Amino acid sequence: MHNPALVCTGCGLREVITEVRQRCPQCAEPVEVQGDVAGARPRPEASTLLERYGAFLPFARVGPELSLGEGDTPLVLARHLSSLLRLDELCFKLEGHNPTGSFKDRGTVAGIQRAMDLGMRRVGTVSTGNMAGSVAAYAARAGLPCVVAVSPDTPDAKLGSIAIHGPSLLRLTDDYADAYRTSVRIGPAAGVYFINSDDPFRVEGQKTLAYEIMEQSGERSPELIVLPVSSGGNASALLKGLDEWRFAGLADELPRLLCVQAVGCAPIASAFAAAELRPRWVDRPDTIAHAISNPSPPSGARLLRALGAGERGWAIAVRDREIEAAQRLLAEEEGLFVQPDAAAALAGLSQALRNGSIPRPSRVTVVLTGHGLKDPAAVERLWIAPRSISAAQLESALSERA
Amino acid sequence: MHNPALVCTGCGLREVITEVRQRCPQCAEPVEVQGDVAGARPRPEASTLLERYGAFLPFARVGPELSLGEGDTPLVLARHLSSLLRLDELCFKLEGHNPTGSFKDRGTVAGIQRAMDLGMRRVGTVSTGNMAGSVAAYAARAGLPCVVAVSPDTPDAKLGSIAIHGPSLLRLTDDYADAYRTSVRIGPAAGVYFINSDDPFRVEGQKTLAYEIMEQSGERSPELIVLPVSSGGNASALLKGLDEWRFAGLADELPRLLCVQAVGCAPIASAFAAAELRPRWVDRPDTIAHAISNPSPPSGARLLRALGAGERGWAIAVRDREIEAAQRLLAEEEGLFVQPDAAAALAGLSQALRNGSIPRPSRVTVVLTGHGLKDPAAVERLWIAPRSISAAQLESALSERA
Repeated sequence: MHNPALVCTGCGLREVITEVRQRCPQCAEPVEVQGDVAGARPRPEASTLLERYGAFLPFARVGPELSLGEGDTPLVLARHLSSLLRLDELCFKLEGHNPTGSFKDRGTVAGIQRAMDLGMRRVGTVSTGNMAGSVAAYAARAGLPCVVAVSPDTPDAKLGSIAIHGPSLLRLTDDYADAYRTSVRIGPAAGVYFINSDDPFRVEGQKTLAYEIMEQSGERSPELIVLPVSSGGNASALLKGLDEWRFAGLADELPRLLCVQAVGCAPIASAFAAAELRPRWVDRPDTIAHAISNPSPPSGARLLRALGAGERGWAIAVRDREIEAAQRLLAEEEGLFVQPDAAAALAGLSQALRNGSIPRPSRVTVVLTGHGLKDPAAVERLWIAPRSISAAQLESALSERA
Repeated sequence: MHNPALVCTGCGLREVITEVRQRCPQCAEPVEVQGDVAGARPRPEASTLLERYGAFLPFARVGPELSLGEGDTPLVLARHLSSLLRLDELCFKLEGHNPTGSFKDRGTVAGIQRAMDLGMRRVGTVSTGNMAGSVAAYAARAGLPCVVAVSPDTPDAKLGSIAIHGPSLLRLTDDYADAYRTSVRIGPAAGVYFINSDDPFRVEGQKTLAYEIMEQSGERSPELIVLPVSSGGNASALLKGLDEWRFAGLADELPRLLCVQAVGCAPIASAFAAAELRPRWVDRPDTIAHAISNPSPPSGARLLRALGAGERGWAIAVRDREIEAAQRLLAEEEGLFVQPDAAAALAGLSQALRNGSIPRPSRVTVVLTGHGLKDPAAVERLWIAPRSISAAQLESALSERA
């Protein structure tokens, strides 16, 4: 990327990149890195994500040291669900194949790279769960001390996989949104680089999802990309990546986005439905999709501006029982075990096609953001205890099930 | 692969491939597929594992339909542990990036392909856990009904991720080895293709691990590959793959293997130490590394024959506390969260280097067979409960940790 600068996504204020900056000093909206990517091309022979897309990124130099094998996740064709949904082509982008089991790793490696470039001595995050495990893992890899503040509703089962990397682990007892704002305010002075969802360098990593979908789809790029939305940072990054892919001269038409939230925490989808440009903050999030239950999404207004009135995409909400049904469907029909938040994307696609609330696309890619193994508690209620048998009973058990 | 045939790994009996056959009718040892791979080359542009290595495999035709994105897992350079172990180069092969979180998926997709080619109507497995989730997922993908019998000590936390794919799930109350033998005996008559660890077509899938390590290492191929061993099937497949890579003309010298078991269930390592060619069956497995606690490894004798007296490799055992220490070390120093069985490989390498029980290698690749998320119970005892704070306390918490 040539001549990168920090530009406010709200008021357009343009600054030279010199320091830690996540929100605009003028209007407090998220800032992003903008630069010239005309003619940029991926390097498929490179072994790591940041090297592969180096020409699109604002880093002076990247090596393989910080990589845990993020990105380059599979895009697989649906085997059974495309006909069920009456689509010509349905693909799943399996972000659960990332090192810590979720899409967050793309952004984390970029954020850690930025922290190293700045010479920061500590990193941190305020997270609903997926981000926490990701930042803790990459900080360990980089050898940087790390502070992780998790939201009050982060399931216990997730904490072990965060704590094992050795961060200072804090569980917030009250306001997640407050803690997030505090981290943005005090991080620089405290010498902690907070790699939160809307950090502009995290967004630079997350946007690589767009490049991969476009590259892997080749001539058959999707008309619609469906993904779950929490802070709005990943969806914003996806739109940014798609734009850059076009600026680079690699695509003419771009897919639109269907952004899916849970009814129990739908600040962006509610605003979209009401044609408002500010997310409607939620008092008490209540959904099984913990990873997308951010009640006050910091990139919510940014995403609403970017979506327009459907020109770039839509935002909708689905009920928990639709999410559960989609999770089972993916596991039973496609062999894909995903987190509830990831399943929400399929539930949203199904709802939108049924309602006719979006133009019917023929080619769709659903981003499955996290692996089901990240949230074992979510499946406990779904399954029946196995039948206990002795080895001698195996033969008769087999014939009765024939 | 040209002219594939089934050959007994024990007595060498050679048969035409016509039916379901896992053990030799003459000596009851495992059979394997042998054929001509001279001049075979990978197809890096192919999008799935079986297509990429089709020239090395005994399938007449493979498509992408059965794939869940298995294989093509990252090989990452250690950042901190190579100097700790005084090695010139230490790499980790991250098999936890496979679709169901473990190396088993490579073999499962090949086994399912074989079941489809044979027109089998059901598949199944008898497993300590990782295999169960893998077979259940790929059976769902293929649309084949599936029977999964798990061993008595399979942790509850693992069952949800198996059950969600909708198999007939049976928990064995007694003898795992008996159930395994029963499955081999009655499978064909009951119309169930059991994709157990030593199925020759599963082994054909597992051997692709060797190809990937050799390809990704390029000029810097390892002198030693370290991996955990349970049934002996994967280590046997790795040796087979290495041999074929040489037969194809792609390497002159091959790495040797360090096979690692847990002291609490070390039938192969005990036999190796005593220079015996039959595994010493274990009465009561007792280790935190459940995924490698197979007390009567069906490919144990096969592996012991193949290793020789160190010509191709060695087998050793490590204590649970060494496994726990290695699991923490990987998470804290490298950012890699792995299953205890995977950590056993690093523990084994460390022990062997310390003892001088193997010649000191300069380049080593450790196969991390499964993701830590697969066994959350194993980390519960390792971590300390997070400190609870309010958002207002975050600022002071940060400064006291500076």
